[in-house]
Amino acid sequence: MLPPTLSPTPLYHALTRSFTRIHRLGHLQSMAQWDQAANMPPRGNEARAAAMAEMAALMHRLRTDPQLGRELEGASSEALDDAQRANLREMRRQWNSATALPEALVERRSMATSRCEHAWRSQRQANDWAGFLPNLREVLQITRECAQRLSDHSGLAPYDALMDQFEPGMTSAVVQRVFGDVRQWLPGLIQQVMERQAMRTLLVPQGPFPLAAQRQLCERVMHLLSFDFQAGRLDVSAHPFSGGVPEDVRLTTRFREDDFLQSLMGTVHETGHGRYEQNLPRELLGQPVAEARSMAIHESQSLSYEMQLGGHPGFARLLSPMLVEAFGDQAAFMPENLHRLLTRVKPGYIRVDADEVTYPAHVIMRFEIERALVEGEIEAEDIPALWDTAMMDLLGLDTRGNFKDGPMQDVHWPEGLFGYFPCYSLGAMYAAQWFAAMRRAVPDLDARIEAGDLAVVFDWLRENIWLPASRWTTDELAGRASGETLNPAHFRAHLEARYLR
Amino acid sequence: MLPPTLSPTPLYHALTRSFTRIHRLGHLQSMAQWDQAANMPPRGNEARAAAMAEMAALMHRLRTDPQLGRELEGASSEALDDAQRANLREMRRQWNSATALPEALVERRSMATSRCEHAWRSQRQANDWAGFLPNLREVLQITRECAQRLSDHSGLAPYDALMDQFEPGMTSAVVQRVFGDVRQWLPGLIQQVMERQAMRTLLVPQGPFPLAAQRQLCERVMHLLSFDFQAGRLDVSAHPFSGGVPEDVRLTTRFREDDFLQSLMGTVHETGHGRYEQNLPRELLGQPVAEARSMAIHESQSLSYEMQLGGHPGFARLLSPMLVEAFGDQAAFMPENLHRLLTRVKPGYIRVDADEVTYPAHVIMRFEIERALVEGEIEAEDIPALWDTAMMDLLGLDTRGNFKDGPMQDVHWPEGLFGYFPCYSLGAMYAAQWFAAMRRAVPDLDARIEAGDLAVVFDWLRENIWLPASRWTTDELAGRASGETLNPAHFRAHLEARYLR
Repeated sequence: MLPPTLSPTPLYHALTRSFTRIHRLGHLQSMAQWDQAANMPPRGNEARAAAMAEMAALMHRLRTDPQLGRELEGASSEALDDAQRANLREMRRQWNSATALPEALVERRSMATSRCEHAWRSQRQANDWAGFLPNLREVLQITRECAQRLSDHSGLAPYDALMDQFEPGMTSAVVQRVFGDVRQWLPGLIQQVMERQAMRTLLVPQGPFPLAAQRQLCERVMHLLSFDFQAGRLDVSAHPFSGGVPEDVRLTTRFREDDFLQSLMGTVHETGHGRYEQNLPRELLGQPVAEARSMAIHESQSLSYEMQLGGHPGFARLLSPMLVEAFGDQAAFMPENLHRLLTRVKPGYIRVDADEVTYPAHVIMRFEIERALVEGEIEAEDIPALWDTAMMDLLGLDTRGNFKDGPMQDVHWPEGLFGYFPCYSLGAMYAAQWFAAMRRAVPDLDARIEAGDLAVVFDWLRENIWLPASRWTTDELAGRASGETLNPAHFRAHLEARYLR
Repeated sequence: MLPPTLSPTPLYHALTRSFTRIHRLGHLQSMAQWDQAANMPPRGNEARAAAMAEMAALMHRLRTDPQLGRELEGASSEALDDAQRANLREMRRQWNSATALPEALVERRSMATSRCEHAWRSQRQANDWAGFLPNLREVLQITRECAQRLSDHSGLAPYDALMDQFEPGMTSAVVQRVFGDVRQWLPGLIQQVMERQAMRTLLVPQGPFPLAAQRQLCERVMHLLSFDFQAGRLDVSAHPFSGGVPEDVRLTTRFREDDFLQSLMGTVHETGHGRYEQNLPRELLGQPVAEARSMAIHESQSLSYEMQLGGHPGFARLLSPMLVEAFGDQAAFMPENLHRLLTRVKPGYIRVDADEVTYPAHVIMRFEIERALVEGEIEAEDIPALWDTAMMDLLGLDTRGNFKDGPMQDVHWPEGLFGYFPCYSLGAMYAAQWFAAMRRAVPDLDARIEAGDLAVVFDWLRENIWLPASRWTTDELAGRASGETLNPAHFRAHLEARYLR
């Protein structure tokens, strides 16, 4: 590499160095976060929190260094190629996001969400909506302030400005159109699927399932899914997640002796996230253009693994002998029964436990409520009534008075994460769209998956999603990969093909 | 706490904030180091190395910030109490150490030691002294430059200036006097002990010893030694160490199926280091005055655990039933035989495997050689001949041509760590001195340890060593704890009492 002073694009060159530096220091943050969840003993918490806050402040200073702003300004007139321009676009996006909010507001938000989230942990257990409400009101109030600032900065509507931080380019107009359509056909589809499934027999696996055997099983399945254990690990934490850095991905799960499917399929989900990270373009790591495209695209990878592959009859066939080896022979482990277990549809209160058919209902209602909250159309005290109505309309469930398993079940709002929920279902839709594209490219795709050849799937994802990373906008990425931008018809077709045929 | 502008000691106040900040960022470094040894998959190495180098550069800039120098200058005229003055003294020591070497020299050293250490890993296996020598010469050359710089800065002799970074206040004159004395009586003592031990029977435990049982045993023994598992962990790494931070201590060990004693006593050793860290004065953590006093004092804690306690008949009695529970009943686990195993003396080639009687021989010869190397009295190619002579004189072993188990066995010289070796034996001497002082303070100490009451030992160490941390110089600390500065007579008396009576 040329020294910056001799580079024909000195400003761009200086920017790449600064972003590499931020990426390297971020590595230590990611590892400490993972360690906090997977290893840290309780009395280490206070010192860790202080260390993380110090590092966050330092990173914020680096990300908002006025020098960066000047270089971003000047670099656009340099002679950059298309890939460099894409990197510059992503740099500018990160810079805008880091500088849009004044530090005092970020601190107030951090204090309010810490307080709200901390209290929520016990209030949720106690079903204490009244206790939760004042904290949530404060978080909402600050969220609206942030949304307004971001809106002033970007010209987007306030809710759209929040969503843009997770899903650049997505607007609530699009989400409303897409979710509005799902709202029409989903309740009927759920009804139909449940009627069909009620008529078939289903054997439930009998535990206990020893934890050591579960762990081994999860690692075997991760191997099957081509997770690179030379560049990542599986560990245990209370709330499963995919963390670490692209070069060293740290997945977590949790085990229950009476049920292995939850941790196994959770692991399959996180493995999808992990393989995306492990296969980002290595030679560009450290540059914004080499980061995962967006939260919906990330979720489209975890759901390609957990739902598209996990619910495929071929997956049950691959898994069946592994279960027998892990836990001994049971009739419930026969491929056909296993496939039924992995595609069982049942409306329930809890989003994170939902199957792929009922899941969108949970997301749609959250989106409708949080958009109205941010735009000032409703207040925090209006949530329960709206929640109850939506749950009855969409899933036929009565949630009145059950705040714990109702609007208090998720950590997102207490944490001030508004605008994130849509990504879950957009991800499910993109995943269906990728598999539809794959079927066009590889006409015998299903036969090959049935025959245990998963590489055909991974190769397509690597080529079309993982390696492009943030080279294109999301719409461009989807267009290049599948010939069209987000098209939710593929999701509906997928559900009908899998559950009604 | 007052805001700095209202503080009556604004400069001192500003310094405490800067050092707290450095401490907090150092937390992330420590955790990443531990993770690298205990968790990191191999392909994560390159990104981790880049992240650590970035962080090291950042920390160096913070530690040498000219503003700190001006504040240190000015703070001495502020109205500080004695504890604050002690903190200022330690701040100044750290500042001097950070600023003494120009950055270009530090970088050259880092490159040379990386190269030398990397090559040494395979050269040692191959007994390739000729291949190792040019790299070692380069490291020595840079070490001499560093020593000269530190010497110019401090007024100490070059070797003393290096040692001062690990053992502040210690001089080679003192070490030479102390080690010179040991050299006189040690070979005779070893001879006598071996003759006595040759006459007694010794049962060797029969493996295999399953790793899970060994791990559980190590944790049980750590509980017995009052290690706080709410503020620390035990994990596995290739080279055992004590890492992490005082609030969250990360110990490591390694297991072999055919031998449990090595990992068990290694764990006892690291637990001594760990409890020192866990019991540093919590309210002052982040300030230099709250850090461990020195490397010899640190080693005096690990050796208080491993040697003073581990070789005590009372310890064998406590351990015996735990071994039966872990591995089943064996005659070798009877307390008396166990005590013989834990106090077996046998000259050997390898320092890290040595018992407490022969250990000083390994250290004395390394000190003599490295001091002469740094002072320019000998060159790297003179090492083997001096090594062979010393091993024959002190331990009666022929090491000619065996570089692998001779001067190439330790990582210290390849890593450029000159001036560190004396701390190991100074630590053993301090440990004996602490136990002598304890016996004066608690006349029935041995009876209480025999009866399984270890708290009496821990209480004394907490009061006299752990909580004082760096409040006093090492000489002052030793004086307050034991009524005298370093007095190696206690070490000799300890060995004679344990091995000749």
